[in-house]
Amino acid sequence: MVELKNKIPVGVLGATGSVGQKFIQLLNQHPWFSIIELVASEQSAGHSYGQVVNWLQDSPMPEEIAKKIILNSEQTLNAKILFSALDASVAEEIEQSYARAGHIVISNARNHRFHPQVPLLIPEVNAEHLDAIFSQSFGQGHIITNPNCSTTGMVLALKPLQDRFGIKKVQVVTMQALSGAGFPGVSSLQIMDNVIPFIKNEEEKMETEPRKLLGQWTGTEFREADITISASCNRVPVIDGHLESVSLEFENKPTMEEIIDAWQTFTSDIQQYGLPSAPGRAIYYFEQPHLPQPRLQRNLEGGMAVSVGRLRPCSVLHYKFHVLSHNTIRGAAGGAILNAELLVAKYGKKVGVM
Amino acid sequence: MVELKNKIPVGVLGATGSVGQKFIQLLNQHPWFSIIELVASEQSAGHSYGQVVNWLQDSPMPEEIAKKIILNSEQTLNAKILFSALDASVAEEIEQSYARAGHIVISNARNHRFHPQVPLLIPEVNAEHLDAIFSQSFGQGHIITNPNCSTTGMVLALKPLQDRFGIKKVQVVTMQALSGAGFPGVSSLQIMDNVIPFIKNEEEKMETEPRKLLGQWTGTEFREADITISASCNRVPVIDGHLESVSLEFENKPTMEEIIDAWQTFTSDIQQYGLPSAPGRAIYYFEQPHLPQPRLQRNLEGGMAVSVGRLRPCSVLHYKFHVLSHNTIRGAAGGAILNAELLVAKYGKKVGVM
Amino acid sequence: MVELKNKIPVGVLGATGSVGQKFIQLLNQHPWFSIIELVASEQSAGHSYGQVVNWLQDSPMPEEIAKKIILNSEQTLNAKILFSALDASVAEEIEQSYARAGHIVISNARNHRFHPQVPLLIPEVNAEHLDAIFSQSFGQGHIITNPNCSTTGMVLALKPLQDRFGIKKVQVVTMQALSGAGFPGVSSLQIMDNVIPFIKNEEEKMETEPRKLLGQWTGTEFREADITISASCNRVPVIDGHLESVSLEFENKPTMEEIIDAWQTFTSDIQQYGLPSAPGRAIYYFEQPHLPQPRLQRNLEGGMAVSVGRLRPCSVLHYKFHVLSHNTIRGAAGGAILNAELLVAKYGKKVGVM
Amino acid sequence: MVELKNKIPVGVLGATGSVGQKFIQLLNQHPWFSIIELVASEQSAGHSYGQVVNWLQDSPMPEEIAKKIILNSEQTLNAKILFSALDASVAEEIEQSYARAGHIVISNARNHRFHPQVPLLIPEVNAEHLDAIFSQSFGQGHIITNPNCSTTGMVLALKPLQDRFGIKKVQVVTMQALSGAGFPGVSSLQIMDNVIPFIKNEEEKMETEPRKLLGQWTGTEFREADITISASCNRVPVIDGHLESVSLEFENKPTMEEIIDAWQTFTSDIQQYGLPSAPGRAIYYFEQPHLPQPRLQRNLEGGMAVSVGRLRPCSVLHYKFHVLSHNTIRGAAGGAILNAELLVAKYGKKVGVM
Repeated sequence: MVELKNKIPVGVLGATGSVGQKFIQLLNQHPWFSIIELVASEQSAGHSYGQVVNWLQDSPMPEEIAKKIILNSEQTLNAKILFSALDASVAEEIEQSYARAGHIVISNARNHRFHPQVPLLIPEVNAEHLDAIFSQSFGQGHIITNPNCSTTGMVLALKPLQDRFGIKKVQVVTMQALSGAGFPGVSSLQIMDNVIPFIKNEEEKMETEPRKLLGQWTGTEFREADITISASCNRVPVIDGHLESVSLEFENKPTMEEIIDAWQTFTSDIQQYGLPSAPGRAIYYFEQPHLPQPRLQRNLEGGMAVSVGRLRPCSVLHYKFHVLSHNTIRGAAGGAILNAELLVAKYGKKVGVM
Repeated sequence: MVELKNKIPVGVLGATGSVGQKFIQLLNQHPWFSIIELVASEQSAGHSYGQVVNWLQDSPMPEEIAKKIILNSEQTLNAKILFSALDASVAEEIEQSYARAGHIVISNARNHRFHPQVPLLIPEVNAEHLDAIFSQSFGQGHIITNPNCSTTGMVLALKPLQDRFGIKKVQVVTMQALSGAGFPGVSSLQIMDNVIPFIKNEEEKMETEPRKLLGQWTGTEFREADITISASCNRVPVIDGHLESVSLEFENKPTMEEIIDAWQTFTSDIQQYGLPSAPGRAIYYFEQPHLPQPRLQRNLEGGMAVSVGRLRPCSVLHYKFHVLSHNTIRGAAGGAILNAELLVAKYGKKVGVM
Repeated sequence: MVELKNKIPVGVLGATGSVGQKFIQLLNQHPWFSIIELVASEQSAGHSYGQVVNWLQDSPMPEEIAKKIILNSEQTLNAKILFSALDASVAEEIEQSYARAGHIVISNARNHRFHPQVPLLIPEVNAEHLDAIFSQSFGQGHIITNPNCSTTGMVLALKPLQDRFGIKKVQVVTMQALSGAGFPGVSSLQIMDNVIPFIKNEEEKMETEPRKLLGQWTGTEFREADITISASCNRVPVIDGHLESVSLEFENKPTMEEIIDAWQTFTSDIQQYGLPSAPGRAIYYFEQPHLPQPRLQRNLEGGMAVSVGRLRPCSVLHYKFHVLSHNTIRGAAGGAILNAELLVAKYGKKVGVM
Repeated sequence: MVELKNKIPVGVLGATGSVGQKFIQLLNQHPWFSIIELVASEQSAGHSYGQVVNWLQDSPMPEEIAKKIILNSEQTLNAKILFSALDASVAEEIEQSYARAGHIVISNARNHRFHPQVPLLIPEVNAEHLDAIFSQSFGQGHIITNPNCSTTGMVLALKPLQDRFGIKKVQVVTMQALSGAGFPGVSSLQIMDNVIPFIKNEEEKMETEPRKLLGQWTGTEFREADITISASCNRVPVIDGHLESVSLEFENKPTMEEIIDAWQTFTSDIQQYGLPSAPGRAIYYFEQPHLPQPRLQRNLEGGMAVSVGRLRPCSVLHYKFHVLSHNTIRGAAGGAILNAELLVAKYGKKVGVM
């Protein structure tokens, strides 16, 4: 287990947006990390955080955060670990720049997810991919990414099935929450009493990211899993929590009982580390036919567990089920923090943060 | 074209529920039909309609309807054509009883949909199935049914594709509106900021009804189409309009252009009859990537057209797209009225209503 | 009654925004007016309307409108009557400039509402204020304004009471729809499962506009009615329809029956003109205790009638009641069109539009 | 401070409804109380709680509760303290019957609120009213009530103002959450994209309860405060949290600064007891003009604090402001639990529970 004399100082990039706010909310009173620096765009830099941010979290803004003066991305930072909630339009350059300056960037942006030496990481799924950071050539620094919010929940549910039975084909239709679009994101006039059957670039992410996540790091390169995925992504009037209807075809078709057993007995290597943000159980299976539901299960284990239910035969592929996960916690800020915790536990001394 | 000296008197069974209300709203000022009788349960019978009904339509209750005294289902009716919005728990017995008394029951209930001589009818899809009524043995009367609200829109979109290219497999995930559950139906506490991934019996209906609809009436029996369908049904916080994400595998894989052409040039035999409720076009294809949406397209052609969009390749089956239709108009009351109109136009004299 | 040989050509300023779209929707197939010109900001000008607008109305965009090339506000226009949906930040200068060029600007913007020669007009309330346009000195042109969306419905309900009993004090708390904020307006993340107890500048408008509307045009100036108004404005998750809870103190306290009678027998001078957008009745009183409701009554008379209900004694002032009106129709575009119709009917020849 | 050797066993009456569920959620892991008995209606009695309840809370049902067999109201109970979430239609008889059997009933029902010896209690407001229980003649037992959910928040905000400046008149318009109507309560078809301007009996409660709460217990009777209140109650599409727009007239008109100071420095006698459910501060004043909002502030201090904001002059009365409180926590189950805590702290030995 990790023991720290002092908390590790961290920074947040893109601190004013909705994922940035979620980082701040989740890192407040974190047992390992302490926010010392906030970075945002030119307009915000130089002002105190409390002055400029439109705080939309359901817990009050931490007072010491409110007082902090926001920095801009040109300024030198003291925190070694930086959580990035940067917009994809600027993340590539800024994240690389910080990495080259010696920082470890734990990114939620999509830009480096398919970089050949950057791990796309879900600790319970592919903790061994973390080793790829030592092949990176961003100066003394590193970049670690987490997947898109709609990918994470599904891949966690697929992981134990892939391990035991092999997966060949996946059909997934998503019903995604509004918070996934950031703030201001979706106008109320667009989504009240409505569903929008399109989210830009989302289907492409869901069809490619699981292949890297469920694949292997050979020591020199990533080998993708040979799974065919078809995704159809929809925005629904739900605040938090992505619900997905999934159909699967296996290499070795299991029984329903074997699938449920795979979910219910799923454990991962990372449990040895006692990571603070890791859920007690990563996957919950619900037997009631009307579960999981976004409002009822999204906060399970602090939003870090995924919920599955409604497993039943599929007449086109083998089986179908529903999976739910919290898109801004497990699918974004919480997932990135768990990645940082894994880094500290596994390689904290090697990368110089403890 | 049909010419009537006088409007045909009709009755509504189950007149106080939400589909009953929609029948009344749509039949108000109908050029062919005139409501003369309203039937509801024991508690309502004997009172005026205006007194007992919780009117939830967005147009005012017609005044002459408000004054009508509600009858019970034991009373003799004068209207030859009866629209049935009865609950499935009582529809079987009451509908058969009215048919045996010589009435023609145009039913929205599920009970007789798979009866071997009862047509499950969408005029643009299988008008020729109507002939089955002359093989029925409900005394002098007849029963005609329309499909479940989630089936109708999808089957209209499939019909031109089935005719031209043949369909082998269908995967469909629905996002269904609240009005499909009737009143009071879904509690606001269950569905606000939420999705419910389960609708009782709905997946079974969607997996079987299209096979009868897209099949043939041989003159003596129905032969089902050989299509494999897998459905996953969800309730979303939308008032009206079922949106469905569909993936297809064809017998003869067409190009995307051929599919769009099939939709855009689709016509049906019923256009010769000038049915008042028939949409000018039954299928609209939208090129914009974010359409169709329930709130924007559900009322197209008075809620009788279906909207399709987002046609694109599917890596698991051949193609995927979205389809939207108004569940209480095209998918329920409006669909049933169109069935009655087809009956009048094709066999009005033979069945004695004109 | 007005008889026109040809439709009067009109233009729409600010045509791409949500009020601009509503103008287009309501003017499509208008019996007197025909849109020949659309004006919008620099970014949109030069493109066809269909290319640049994010159409959010529930009826399809008219095809001939979709093809029109958008003009910018520097270009000379041929239409004499211009409907202005301009943003308040630019309306003052542009509207005056068009008026000086000889156009009649029918404005929904707030800028000129308190100009000493500009009528703030609701035809059923203060049609005689229209005469003020002949005291204006905007060259050969004129400017006519309609009130804020939250003011209109309340003032229509107050008008018959003011005439008969005199009003001294008004307390009003509003529950206002999202469309009042325009597009994109309120983010879905701000308003889902929420109420926002603040709308910028709204309370000021509600506390001042009714005084001008219920006051007099003396021939040379406006004299405000001596009514004290206190307003508290809230945004609720409703798409269209402002609902307001009003308490009143009268000069001569009437009975409840007298108030209801004043509403139910209310007529106005404008009925002689047969204006196409005028509702058959401007005020509907509902006896049922749970009405009026936004979704059920907002579209009454095409959205041009106001609905009142729940009249009951108030223990602090005299009486309280609820009033509902459609904010983008009666409270914005529809109200402005009715103003233009009154102008045409009363002074069409004098101002040179027929 | 209270020190207990063992937790006090308690029971919940009406345990399956929505307030009953909230009692269970809040009493789970309560430092003083432990649920040993659950009582519900005949249909549920004899089954395990987990089998029959439709659990709608956002935290999982406690496992030991799920296993408990539900009792009916005829059975003898061992818990001395009983929390009542009974429906008003049955509460009067059952609560009195339990009191006569020696139990202390902490009731959320309205039935005994105006009983001449039953305290209507908010500990921070009128803790001294608790003494009235010793004048009761329900055998050895007692009944204590808490006010209606819409009353509680407003009265907490009024208390410091009444103490310092005296209140003469109150105008309040509420925007109340769906959970206040229980389950199934309001149908989604009634409230989506809508507001309902009526809640049965609610205005009467708000106009009378504050007079008892802000009045005095003389030792033999309750003397009501001489305040005139006018209420207008509305249901809005919000899950939890009643927002209210309040206007006030004072006996001695203060400045705005004095009002804010009264709120910000408000303390009450009960702070001496260290009650587990008491909020650190009962009243929070927000300076930002757009606060308080239901979704952002309802959970402040675990849902036990009230939030006020938007203080500004009122042109009809003296001042107006908004107040928000969590209707099922502070306004129902949480408020009742706080009442029980006050009883234990002040009279625990005298009434025989410790």
